[in-house]
Amino acid sequence: MNPSKIKACLFDVFGTVVDWRTSVSRDLQEFARRKGIGGIDWLEFAVEWRKLYQPSMDEVRSGRRAFTILDVLHRESLVTLVERYRIAGLSQVDLDHMSRAWHRLDPWPDVREGLERLRRARIIAPCSNGNIALMVNMAKRAGLPWDCILGAETARAYKPMPEAYLVSCRQLGLAPAEVMMVAAHNGDLRAAKAQGLATGFVARPLEHGPGQTTDLAPDSSCVDIAAADFVELAARLG
Amino acid sequence: MNPSKIKACLFDVFGTVVDWRTSVSRDLQEFARRKGIGGIDWLEFAVEWRKLYQPSMDEVRSGRRAFTILDVLHRESLVTLVERYRIAGLSQVDLDHMSRAWHRLDPWPDVREGLERLRRARIIAPCSNGNIALMVNMAKRAGLPWDCILGAETARAYKPMPEAYLVSCRQLGLAPAEVMMVAAHNGDLRAAKAQGLATGFVARPLEHGPGQTTDLAPDSSCVDIAAADFVELAARLG
Repeated sequence: MNPSKIKACLFDVFGTVVDWRTSVSRDLQEFARRKGIGGIDWLEFAVEWRKLYQPSMDEVRSGRRAFTILDVLHRESLVTLVERYRIAGLSQVDLDHMSRAWHRLDPWPDVREGLERLRRARIIAPCSNGNIALMVNMAKRAGLPWDCILGAETARAYKPMPEAYLVSCRQLGLAPAEVMMVAAHNGDLRAAKAQGLATGFVARPLEHGPGQTTDLAPDSSCVDIAAADFVELAARLG
Repeated sequence: MNPSKIKACLFDVFGTVVDWRTSVSRDLQEFARRKGIGGIDWLEFAVEWRKLYQPSMDEVRSGRRAFTILDVLHRESLVTLVERYRIAGLSQVDLDHMSRAWHRLDPWPDVREGLERLRRARIIAPCSNGNIALMVNMAKRAGLPWDCILGAETARAYKPMPEAYLVSCRQLGLAPAEVMMVAAHNGDLRAAKAQGLATGFVARPLEHGPGQTTDLAPDSSCVDIAAADFVELAARLG
């Protein structure tokens, strides 16, 4: 893989760019305090919410459900959890606000500087399963300088479906070999590599909290470049 | 129309944000000089190319042709013109380069400052018939600080079809009344207004060169705000 051939970097977002676990739990905790809702472990709640993420997309991936944006899937999962946790007295507006906690995620500390460096010589865009509004609102709040928003909604396919990667490259007018997928998840990179993209691994050993056992190191069978963070990735790509 | 209700501004691009006529003709002229192609009035050529723009999209709007991105339509129109002008000896790479003249358009002088001001309080995005790659490459070169790229390719509909406006609003998670369409063309604003969007008119009296007779003034039946340029528009919206 020749870094000078890479014209664009696509990024996984949840976990790779932003710390969803800390951000969602903190957001919900603040909301609960304002509403006087007690007795819930919001860190556990955030993790349970995330556990419903893959199953909800599997309905779409399998073709059992027409393409549906992640904001809708997140809200449906939230309603399931609110019932399971027996949280009473929430209005539709409250549920909308809670569901949009996923629009208010904080980036890892190296992200802004790394993206600013990367975008000097290349196109940078998310290639996330999050929908356009989610990505735009997150970027405005967190200061993420994307050149455009790509991903599940523009490709109408959820990663790791091949179309999610291939349509994103095509929409940039680039061949897969001119595009690097960057993620903290080897599975995402394995799927991108299978479609001919270059791959960059950045470890996020705290994505799942202390004691994380997955994705602590790059899988050399599918990773072209591994970097400690986005700033090092920018330096490696040059 | 209450400016504080406007959460996003969508922009027409060709003519409103960038000066396509001067930019395309200058780009082709430089290319012709390098290639030693003489005897062509490239300003006329650019205008003739633009004349094939609406007919090429009409094939898609009418349903006679499946959705096809503007880069492809531009290139087909270019081939038509190259034959009409009897320009010989161009390779496929030459035609690709000439076709991408539309990626290398210069903004009007007020655009960058106006967009920077507008994006402080609002989402800004193109809602152009140009495709994603065209808009991204133009923005990188011209320094246009879009929050995301919307338009024909994301909506899979060419303006002034209703879907081009409505899908763009929906992809931002906003109601049409929360979105302002900004254009130098009353026809674009009439179509946006019919779908419930707010509208902003910015005159570009030199888009078609000296002696322009169209779109010199806003049509008050469909325009909410008229401004002399993007900086004034930002001040008016606050």
